[in-house]
Amino acid sequence: MYVYSSKVVWTEGRRGKLTCGNGFKAVFSAPPEFQGEAGPLTPEDAFVASVNMSFTLMFLKVAEQEKLDIRAFECNCNGIMDRVAPQMAFKRIVLHPRAVLGSDEDIPKAERCMDLAEKLSPVRNSVKPKVVLEFKMEIDKKRSPDRKAREPGE
Amino acid sequence: MYVYSSKVVWTEGRRGKLTCGNGFKAVFSAPPEFQGEAGPLTPEDAFVASVNMSFTLMFLKVAEQEKLDIRAFECNCNGIMDRVAPQMAFKRIVLHPRAVLGSDEDIPKAERCMDLAEKLSPVRNSVKPKVVLEFKMEIDKKRSPDRKAREPGE
Repeated sequence: MYVYSSKVVWTEGRRGKLTCGNGFKAVFSAPPEFQGEAGPLTPEDAFVASVNMSFTLMFLKVAEQEKLDIRAFECNCNGIMDRVAPQMAFKRIVLHPRAVLGSDEDIPKAERCMDLAEKLSPVRNSVKPKVVLEFKMEIDKKRSPDRKAREPGE
Repeated sequence: MYVYSSKVVWTEGRRGKLTCGNGFKAVFSAPPEFQGEAGPLTPEDAFVASVNMSFTLMFLKVAEQEKLDIRAFECNCNGIMDRVAPQMAFKRIVLHPRAVLGSDEDIPKAERCMDLAEKLSPVRNSVKPKVVLEFKMEIDKKRSPDRKAREPGE
């Protein structure tokens, strides 16, 4: 069993300070469309980001176990929030991972790793909205295989 | 309908960079117990924090509509993650809000606002684990009523 904690302190208006259990601190606010402001972390962004980060880290773990040669990885994620009468809630989350692999032969293995990561991610298993995975694979033929991590497009 | 987005880029090991739609940026990692490190934002902390921030902002909104005299507000939140066979998932989230109010008469109204905020919070309505609310109210008899926000214990 693992416990993750946070503390939120209201400072003014629709804004406050967040302290997370792992030591991370940030100012947060409501998003601009709900009387908040641009710039700070918002609850809605944090929710979508938690799904994105959890999937990404689970993919990296599974890929390491499967000895997959990943040269780069990034993931965009969109969360669609709408009225689920009578309340507002997230209805759908779409993950768009993009992996740069060492060779064509890695593609089927990478696809299995992505499907597995989506099933095993603890945050993904804790959210109600439907989660959709739309992945893209590319082959890095020019780079040396000892470069472990690089931003795609770098 | 609202769309919230984030982008995650793997940098090395169990670590990467996060950019959220509202402009917020952070380094993230797995938590130390999952081959990560202390300090950065983690997916698990972000998930729990999103519930905490969403509840807090909804409480502030409802309280404003109800003309509740809140002098200070903070909220601790614990998320319990465990194996929900076969995967790991959050099983329970406990919110511990603490409000400092202008007078004793505000207590019943504040209780209603907290219950309502818990029901209306969009992130709370998007998570699977049971959410428990354990609130505490205090009366601020010494402070002037024009001070709108202050950290409890300040």
